[in-house]
Amino acid sequence: MATEAAAPTARERERGAMRRAVALSARGLGSTSPNPVVGCVVLDAAGRIVGEGWHRRAGGPHAEVHALAEAGEAARGGTAVVTLEPCDHTGRTGPCSRALIDAGVTRVVYAVADPTPAARGGADTLAAAGIDVEGGLLAEEAAEVNAPWLTSVRLGRPYVRWKYAATLDGRTAAADGTSRWITSGEARADVHRLRAEADAVLVGSGTARADDPHLAVRGVPGAVQPLRVVADTEARAVHPGARVLDGAAPTLVAVADDLPDAATAHLDGHAEVLRLPRAGGHGGGHGRGLDVTALLTALHGRGVRSVLLEGGATLAGAFVAARAVDRVTAYLAPALLGAGPAALADAGIATIADALRLTVTAIERTGPDLRIDAVPAASASAASAASAPAPAVHEPKES
Amino acid sequence: MATEAAAPTARERERGAMRRAVALSARGLGSTSPNPVVGCVVLDAAGRIVGEGWHRRAGGPHAEVHALAEAGEAARGGTAVVTLEPCDHTGRTGPCSRALIDAGVTRVVYAVADPTPAARGGADTLAAAGIDVEGGLLAEEAAEVNAPWLTSVRLGRPYVRWKYAATLDGRTAAADGTSRWITSGEARADVHRLRAEADAVLVGSGTARADDPHLAVRGVPGAVQPLRVVADTEARAVHPGARVLDGAAPTLVAVADDLPDAATAHLDGHAEVLRLPRAGGHGGGHGRGLDVTALLTALHGRGVRSVLLEGGATLAGAFVAARAVDRVTAYLAPALLGAGPAALADAGIATIADALRLTVTAIERTGPDLRIDAVPAASASAASAASAPAPAVHEPKES
Ligand SMILES: NC(=O)c1ccc[n+]([C@@H]2O[C@H](COP(=O)([O-])OP(=O)(O)OC[C@H]3O[C@@H](n4cnc5c(N)ncnc54)[C@H](OP(=O)(O)O)[C@@H]3O)[C@@H](O)[C@H]2O)c1
Ligand SMILES: NC(=O)c1ccc[n+]([C@@H]2O[C@H](COP(=O)([O-])OP(=O)(O)OC[C@H]3O[C@@H](n4cnc5c(N)ncnc54)[C@H](OP(=O)(O)O)[C@@H]3O)[C@@H](O)[C@H]2O)c1
Repeated sequence: MATEAAAPTARERERGAMRRAVALSARGLGSTSPNPVVGCVVLDAAGRIVGEGWHRRAGGPHAEVHALAEAGEAARGGTAVVTLEPCDHTGRTGPCSRALIDAGVTRVVYAVADPTPAARGGADTLAAAGIDVEGGLLAEEAAEVNAPWLTSVRLGRPYVRWKYAATLDGRTAAADGTSRWITSGEARADVHRLRAEADAVLVGSGTARADDPHLAVRGVPGAVQPLRVVADTEARAVHPGARVLDGAAPTLVAVADDLPDAATAHLDGHAEVLRLPRAGGHGGGHGRGLDVTALLTALHGRGVRSVLLEGGATLAGAFVAARAVDRVTAYLAPALLGAGPAALADAGIATIADALRLTVTAIERTGPDLRIDAVPAASASAASAASAPAPAVHEPKES
Repeated sequence: MATEAAAPTARERERGAMRRAVALSARGLGSTSPNPVVGCVVLDAAGRIVGEGWHRRAGGPHAEVHALAEAGEAARGGTAVVTLEPCDHTGRTGPCSRALIDAGVTRVVYAVADPTPAARGGADTLAAAGIDVEGGLLAEEAAEVNAPWLTSVRLGRPYVRWKYAATLDGRTAAADGTSRWITSGEARADVHRLRAEADAVLVGSGTARADDPHLAVRGVPGAVQPLRVVADTEARAVHPGARVLDGAAPTLVAVADDLPDAATAHLDGHAEVLRLPRAGGHGGGHGRGLDVTALLTALHGRGVRSVLLEGGATLAGAFVAARAVDRVTAYLAPALLGAGPAALADAGIATIADALRLTVTAIERTGPDLRIDAVPAASASAASAASAPAPAVHEPKES
């Protein structure tokens, strides 16, 4: 190029720092709950990066504290760029607003406002101390990485990501039940990364019985193991010797609260037993499983902010029916079967107008397979779809 | 940039010309059968493009003739770049080898050798006339555009592309049968382009009965209408007044060859009736439909080189079972249903090792939907998969 690159403006430096802070925040996924993931970059008065940090684990220092410690005196007169509004409360660590004031930064730029009553107010405190405060920079990017935590704050239940693996025609196994290596090793390795990012991994009793899954993370260096959860209403699917009961990660077996103690005696010392109401309340009867909302509420109460729902089709159907799926990650193997169980069973959807409409957020190749990520379509578009003409069943289609 | 762009070499010019010739050839898709699609670019002695052409319709001039006519005297001493080996036979038009010799070109570069006994030999004739001949340039790209024709030559039956539209969980309709607008207007418009590229569009009697489909091309300027084909064994699905019987395109109803004439009397004057053996031969019994191979052979005999199979799931299953699907185009709507008919019904595949493995060749967004193109995995990889350890059914999966 003939023109010389102009020196970046202060704004460009802050955007660059925020991009970096968002990337740093993602390193905390899976280990900070019940806290959010947060990243922070400190720029000195000249706009140079002098400190970086991210929140690594609940109870540990916040991102700002890490970054300010690295910056030291260089923070004075500088700018702190942080993915979430600095907290204003004295939790297990002191308020970050105070730490920033003490460090002498003169400007704070954050991406997403803190929605929690306990922690919010940091921006006001900073401004009252004479610091120049600005919010909203790269808010969308930062919010995407923090989606699990933000969703859990908004809904009071953990964020749920449903992951499944199926053929292009939507089958998870062949007619005879065989399913080994529907998807590739690359896709299976990717699932371990999803587990590492989640606070809990959940399967139904059908999967526990059919597959004896392990559910722990393997092959992800530094990963914090998620809580392994099996929804086993009658306490009949998880037996001593099951792989999910080994010592690799903590395990919780959710059972109906009307079971006698004897029914869960075989789990004593092997897993924690969580008693929950049955779906449909008492008298809801057997065979309908556990109340999904109660399960999520109980997990939330234990600090779980994100759940990786690994199936099977029956349990996933119950979650879709409860509109308790916040993200879908589908691994599609380029193969056709024409028979065998479907990826998703009854979700209480009888007619096309009631389909759970999604928006595809990413498509990637994972080895020979496709990985498709999607989120429920915004309520705005759901509303507009609802006002569209009702589909006619027997009218000829436009084909 | 500091360096000046170097003048393209002769080789680069020929590659550029071949790329252009391949693009020109694609314009003929849907209108040249039983001939291939062919594109041609003529370069003068200095390497400048002086003529372009493509084969537009069977019986019309070949691509070379169009391009040479445009080039006129400028072809003398120049190079003809053509996607398929020039023909050497006197069919409805004279041999292209002769036209090239007469035009005075001194070099011919082609992509794909002609595999047909009648037409091949053009390269030898040209070389014998003292012309410098080279084959293989961008052969893969050219063969991809010509896949329908090349496949039909190799297999003696039309190339079959199966197209379907389904939700992410593989359903083509909801539990109550409603399916209107599973996919978007963009996806439906794309299907009309696929129809325009095909020689025939095929559905089973179930689809004819349920949807009363039109099957003609709409909204594609200059499109040649495909032959509309319904596999209606008992001649009970297509009735006078059916949209497929209007005058928009020719229509063929395939029925069992053991039906009495009276059974098809209602179609007289509305559609051509094609009598075919039932699947499994005579005595194969009712309810198994028509012999897929016989249907394809009959269509091939009528000049059909490519079929767009539009379903439904039952007929598609029979085609997959017959290994008569050469390409799959799936439109996946980002929606979940959890119930309803599957995209593909029984294809005679009982166990995972027998799945029809595909290779994804393209992924695109079509409005909000995904369009996934895939072809059966090469026999090479199928062979290596076959030698992999047999999957164990009841062993714990690596999960
Ligand atoms: N390809 C994949 O991605 C994938 C992933 C996982 C599993 N799978 C396959 O799926 C199969 C198992 O699936 P599945 O559908 O039979 O079983 P599942 O969904 O794993 O488990 C269903 C069972 O969970 C229990 N449950 C507890 N609460 C429930 C609730 N609210 N709603 C629904 N169920 C609840 C119920 O049994 P109780 O009443 O006895 O508790 C129910 O029968 C296996 O073959 C496995 O290999 C595939
Ligand atoms: N989403 C999509 O892409 C899409 C596309 C098309 C259709 N559909 C839906 O699919 C449904 C219809 O599907 P379908 O599976 O019921 O019907 P289908 O596949 O369209 O037709 C099946 C029928 O075709 C006849 N047939 C003739 N030869 C056959 C053979 N060799 N093998 C199998 N069948 C043969 C048989 O009936 P006879 O013996 O009576 O001839 C058979 O019952 C409709 O609801 C339609 O809306 C969806």
